[in-house]
Amino acid sequence: MNRLARYLPILDWGKGYGREALTSDMVAAIVVTIMLIPQSLAYAMLAGLPPEVGLYASIFPIMAYALLGTSRTLAVGPVAVLSLMTLTAASAVAPPGSAEFIAAALVLAFLSGVILLALGILKLGLLANLLSHPVVSGFITASGLIIATSQLKSILGIKASGAAMPELLISLFENLGSTNLPTLVIGVASIAFLAWVRKGLKPLLMRFGLPERTADLTARTGPIAAVIVSILAVVAFDLEAKGVKVVGQIPQSLPPFTTPLFDPALWRQLAIPAILLSVIGFVESVSVAQTLAAKKRQRIDPDQELIGLGAANIAASFSGGYPVTGGFARSVVNFDAGARTPAAGAYTAIGIAIAALFLTPLLSSLPIATLAATIIVAVLNLVDLRTPLLIWRYSKADFAAMATTIAVTLVFGVEPGVIAGVLLNLGLFLWRSSRPHAAIVGRVPETEHFRNVKRHKVITDPRIVTIRIDEALTYLNARWLEEFVLEAVAEKPQVKHLVLMCSAVNAIDASAVESLEAINHRLSDGGIRLHLSEVKGPVMDALERSALLEDLTGDVFLSQNAAFSTLLIASEEENSLPPANDVWMARGLI
Amino acid sequence: MNRLARYLPILDWGKGYGREALTSDMVAAIVVTIMLIPQSLAYAMLAGLPPEVGLYASIFPIMAYALLGTSRTLAVGPVAVLSLMTLTAASAVAPPGSAEFIAAALVLAFLSGVILLALGILKLGLLANLLSHPVVSGFITASGLIIATSQLKSILGIKASGAAMPELLISLFENLGSTNLPTLVIGVASIAFLAWVRKGLKPLLMRFGLPERTADLTARTGPIAAVIVSILAVVAFDLEAKGVKVVGQIPQSLPPFTTPLFDPALWRQLAIPAILLSVIGFVESVSVAQTLAAKKRQRIDPDQELIGLGAANIAASFSGGYPVTGGFARSVVNFDAGARTPAAGAYTAIGIAIAALFLTPLLSSLPIATLAATIIVAVLNLVDLRTPLLIWRYSKADFAAMATTIAVTLVFGVEPGVIAGVLLNLGLFLWRSSRPHAAIVGRVPETEHFRNVKRHKVITDPRIVTIRIDEALTYLNARWLEEFVLEAVAEKPQVKHLVLMCSAVNAIDASAVESLEAINHRLSDGGIRLHLSEVKGPVMDALERSALLEDLTGDVFLSQNAAFSTLLIASEEENSLPPANDVWMARGLI
Repeated sequence: MNRLARYLPILDWGKGYGREALTSDMVAAIVVTIMLIPQSLAYAMLAGLPPEVGLYASIFPIMAYALLGTSRTLAVGPVAVLSLMTLTAASAVAPPGSAEFIAAALVLAFLSGVILLALGILKLGLLANLLSHPVVSGFITASGLIIATSQLKSILGIKASGAAMPELLISLFENLGSTNLPTLVIGVASIAFLAWVRKGLKPLLMRFGLPERTADLTARTGPIAAVIVSILAVVAFDLEAKGVKVVGQIPQSLPPFTTPLFDPALWRQLAIPAILLSVIGFVESVSVAQTLAAKKRQRIDPDQELIGLGAANIAASFSGGYPVTGGFARSVVNFDAGARTPAAGAYTAIGIAIAALFLTPLLSSLPIATLAATIIVAVLNLVDLRTPLLIWRYSKADFAAMATTIAVTLVFGVEPGVIAGVLLNLGLFLWRSSRPHAAIVGRVPETEHFRNVKRHKVITDPRIVTIRIDEALTYLNARWLEEFVLEAVAEKPQVKHLVLMCSAVNAIDASAVESLEAINHRLSDGGIRLHLSEVKGPVMDALERSALLEDLTGDVFLSQNAAFSTLLIASEEENSLPPANDVWMARGLI
Repeated sequence: MNRLARYLPILDWGKGYGREALTSDMVAAIVVTIMLIPQSLAYAMLAGLPPEVGLYASIFPIMAYALLGTSRTLAVGPVAVLSLMTLTAASAVAPPGSAEFIAAALVLAFLSGVILLALGILKLGLLANLLSHPVVSGFITASGLIIATSQLKSILGIKASGAAMPELLISLFENLGSTNLPTLVIGVASIAFLAWVRKGLKPLLMRFGLPERTADLTARTGPIAAVIVSILAVVAFDLEAKGVKVVGQIPQSLPPFTTPLFDPALWRQLAIPAILLSVIGFVESVSVAQTLAAKKRQRIDPDQELIGLGAANIAASFSGGYPVTGGFARSVVNFDAGARTPAAGAYTAIGIAIAALFLTPLLSSLPIATLAATIIVAVLNLVDLRTPLLIWRYSKADFAAMATTIAVTLVFGVEPGVIAGVLLNLGLFLWRSSRPHAAIVGRVPETEHFRNVKRHKVITDPRIVTIRIDEALTYLNARWLEEFVLEAVAEKPQVKHLVLMCSAVNAIDASAVESLEAINHRLSDGGIRLHLSEVKGPVMDALERSALLEDLTGDVFLSQNAAFSTLLIASEEENSLPPANDVWMARGLI
């Protein structure tokens, strides 16, 4: 792959593009378009935006990603979690649905695009690493619960609002009395139908003789059936007059040209939400893209993905959309329907554009309850109760990070949830890095192996203490090391030699070198020699650039066994050490 | 040591306290008292406080530490760097010397005491780990330069102010014209004398037949000679009339009882400075205490040290003082003078109290230039130019953290300096943790060793890829791992087996387990089996609590050699793998 193709992947796949790929891509585009129409409308509604915004967000962003993204089958557009995050962030600026709210959503898309692009150009995708699996998983589960709960109002035909569970539930409960029965019937029927489509339609179609893949893809377009049936029901029984809320007139138009408002105060207010939204969107999108790429042994480049997603969001901000990213369900459908290249995405965009131009009048009688049902069935799939159990079993610290993310997200909303999870996870990581595992070891009788004195019957000598350290030595644990070593020899006047067994030490930073120097001199003041054993090659290379090896009162042994044997003999021979030198290593406040 | 003695160390050393220890402690206390009188006055002046505050800060805080601290010889009181930090923080509240300024210094001492106590009780001393050696070293060097520069005004007898170098230098330069010659003579003579005392007095005394230790201790009390001579010069030549500024009347009094102002707005304003001040003071004090303890194979308990220093600062806030910590120079003098127990500190406190009651009238004609000279000679010792060189040679990343700390401290002041250093260091640490070292390895011919294919001539097989990972697998590098593995097999259709050689993997967190699961399933989708080799005991124990080992498409081998040999044979035998399963592992945005 040449340099230019690395930044413009279309040059790579475009040159071999032939009739076969065209056909595959077209078929995939048709299936995805049918699936996307109700989804786009529903997610825009979830974000507190007019339904057409969802369609607009599914046109130019897809094209931008097709040009610059590295995944061949990722389908970009509005997704549930980012819609909720947009709702929360823009609600802080203006009431949902207002012109200022729509403007805020455009600014969010723009900022998020700029952030993603900048991270991509600076190759800082690893910022996303701060979001651990437990935090992301907990966040998505909690978001799914909030989204599903927030949609209950549309199923019941009542008003309710709130960015987190407590307000939402109180608001729903207070308005329960004004439930609209026809709406409830449509909503519940839609949920039941969509849930059955998800589980029962594919086997049924297969029983009718459809091949598995075709059955699967047909089942994926099920929601469009719910849309059609519910529109017909509204028209046939004049349900609008009976209080069933519908989507209403949607403008027949291609995406308008919009410019995100330049307002520094607004930008500052939306900066943190935009960062969170970008990183969450990126993490999920890359995970989907990698999963799909691996199936065909293709590769994706996360830094280039940042650029592709950044361009998609900037495109959204200039074409009346709102924040987008690579969606899981639609990408899987795209892949399964046979998409070969990003051109499938471009065809999907054309499909949605045709829908925006010609099909919107048909959707004016679509009940909002049906869209709410689409969202509920989709997002309940996000709620994952197995992962918390697995994580609880695996690691209590990771579980704590996850549980905190879930709890804070549910109670205080999406932004505090992500931030709390990230900070707690980072804190726990630093805490664990500060307290590495280390053990005083002795020789297993009649072997050359050394094991923890607390766990095994081993041979030790009162004049020699050996400490095995099971972690890289860094500034986070440098002071711990000083304490651990001094503790190990404190009040043991017999000790003459201390050996640090470094078989598991992958790195030593400058702070740790200074601590080793301090340990060396402190031990020397106390009449103890410091030795090292089993130092790895790269670590030894680094230490040779420091003054430690010159100053070391003892030796560096290739193997712990050599260290122990040599020092045993030396201890027998020597009656006393040479006089301790009096160097003051610590330099402090005077 | 029983439980109570752990929290009240006096119970431990107090019970064996006899005549011999009493004598040693008394001698040490006298030497330290003589050294502390000019130092306490000078540091109070540096902090922008009346001179008596320095004496007050050297009385009750020492007693509080003697009761609760774990170091037997640490000498607590005002120190140069905390004095500068107090000046900076309190100057933001009120002009130096004003009543509000003195009140702010008391609040700083109180908050800092509460923070230290809280960290000690919660055993959160490891928070100090965030301050790496390069950051602390850089910070102290930069502070020393700022302090020395700030004292030039008193040497020149001019006015000048500023919290960082640029303002300080401009201010000094602007006022250079009003230099007072007699002041300059006293200042320069004092600096020259004190510098000679430091280097030349001890050898001279030894040549006169004094034993080395006595010569050393006598030289330490040299500053008092400068004080006496310069007072006499001021009185004899009536230099006050010639414009030489003197200390003036100091109240003859024991420390007054003061209460730190309860003002939430002020507390909020001083919270960050108080945190920085506490942590810097703690880090330096513990380093001194550990160095001294090691000489006698005693131990200190960092968490209990937090409690001792916290109590000392709270005592300072209730007795007209300002923030204190364990000082390097005075602790060394205390140790060298033979102090055996914290009682020496209590006797020092009594000595300073006597000075505050009876000697202050003698000090009224002490020139401020002499105190400034004391400070300059003391702090230039803090400026360390060797460490930056060593760190540059050892690690460019650590050097970057240090250089940033120095530059930001010099240009913007102490608080931004510490914060910038800590954040950059943390960022670099996370960055390095995100990009661990890993290598594709092959077998060294006719051995059982496996080495990097890029560095050695090794045997590989196109059907088997082995990756050795040289770091713990955590959430920070989990995504990197996914990319690295997929990259290693991308566009290599021959690969049937991928082995992760885990000999240097000390831990695997929940995120990394999920990534391994994802890798396992993605490879399986691509027809590749995932194997592990040389997994450490504790890591294997952890993995057994996860679902990974059940789901793993390949095996876990005890040695890499066994893995390679077994898979070579298996590759010969098998023509194809069983069909890839179709599990979707990623769960994403719908």
